[in-house]
Amino acid sequence: MRMSELVRRSRVPLATIKYYLREGLLMPGEATSATQAVYGEEHLRRLGLIRALIEVAGLPVQKAGVVIGLIEHPDGDLFETLGRAIGALPPYLEVPEGVDFPRARAALEKIGQLYDPRFTAVAQLERALEAVEAAGMPMDDERLAVYGRSIRQLAEFDVSRVPRSSADTAVEYSVLGTALYEPVIAALRRLAHQDLASRALTP
Amino acid sequence: MRMSELVRRSRVPLATIKYYLREGLLMPGEATSATQAVYGEEHLRRLGLIRALIEVAGLPVQKAGVVIGLIEHPDGDLFETLGRAIGALPPYLEVPEGVDFPRARAALEKIGQLYDPRFTAVAQLERALEAVEAAGMPMDDERLAVYGRSIRQLAEFDVSRVPRSSADTAVEYSVLGTALYEPVIAALRRLAHQDLASRALTP
Repeated sequence: MRMSELVRRSRVPLATIKYYLREGLLMPGEATSATQAVYGEEHLRRLGLIRALIEVAGLPVQKAGVVIGLIEHPDGDLFETLGRAIGALPPYLEVPEGVDFPRARAALEKIGQLYDPRFTAVAQLERALEAVEAAGMPMDDERLAVYGRSIRQLAEFDVSRVPRSSADTAVEYSVLGTALYEPVIAALRRLAHQDLASRALTP
Repeated sequence: MRMSELVRRSRVPLATIKYYLREGLLMPGEATSATQAVYGEEHLRRLGLIRALIEVAGLPVQKAGVVIGLIEHPDGDLFETLGRAIGALPPYLEVPEGVDFPRARAALEKIGQLYDPRFTAVAQLERALEAVEAAGMPMDDERLAVYGRSIRQLAEFDVSRVPRSSADTAVEYSVLGTALYEPVIAALRRLAHQDLASRALTP
């Protein structure tokens, strides 16, 4: 298809598509003359991925580029690649070099999970646990046990669905599944609260 | 205590405290002269609540005022009051009047939960389900069953911990517990993925 059709079908403005081409997020089309190129379904799919990362998951363009680079070249260790791709997702915390995460480490040890401070979600957990503590409702062992068990069930399902066909689809699924299902989970939790409260509180 | 001590102990700048006083988020101190007042532990506690709502949960000052108003005057129906307080939390979606939420309704019916379109989390769920669908990984029945069950366990624990002593503490607990535990849950899910992936992928 021509660029005009790519704009129409993707609903992404021409200037934005040109910007993604310049930044290397979108692969070039097949040149048909010095000034024209044609694009395929893979360009449409890629634009959908870029839009999901930037507009829905909230990544800055540079971080979306990191994720796309890892999807295009998932070289080496898949576990490492997945870690780097998930690490490109928000929230972005400034973590001083060599800092320790005592709350996160204690929580992960209690639920019997891997503690690796290089993983950005460890800093996120530490910050989140600090915040609940400061607000006077710290994580306690009972809540940690319930949360740990429930979230692990859910995470086991997620991991069981990771496509095994190729490393690039595994990375893409993991990044999108992590980022885009977080709002689903938050909304479902609020609605479960509402449902439970309506049973308990309405006459 | 004097204002200077309130500034020191709360670590909230003087200008910010004065702003919260003007906007009614912080209750006035007890006047000791025309220009001086003294403050108590309740002011310190309130500043902690305001800080948690604005800086951690991300509420604009006006929405934090709505929550504090509901905590100060939890009149009438507690279920309605809780709904309005949780409705003041981000994300803020523009929802046209009379719009329907077909994905959210179908999902809630499948897991046997209350569907009430006035509740803002319904619009959040609809938007989140639209996003996963657009990204090519729509919610299916199997995922919905696993997520619904896991999240309900977690929500049951949350609701079991709501303080029953008074309506204002119930509202405060519910708002903070909803907002501040969402990042904890997101981080724990990412770390459960990492733990499961490390067992599956590392030799």
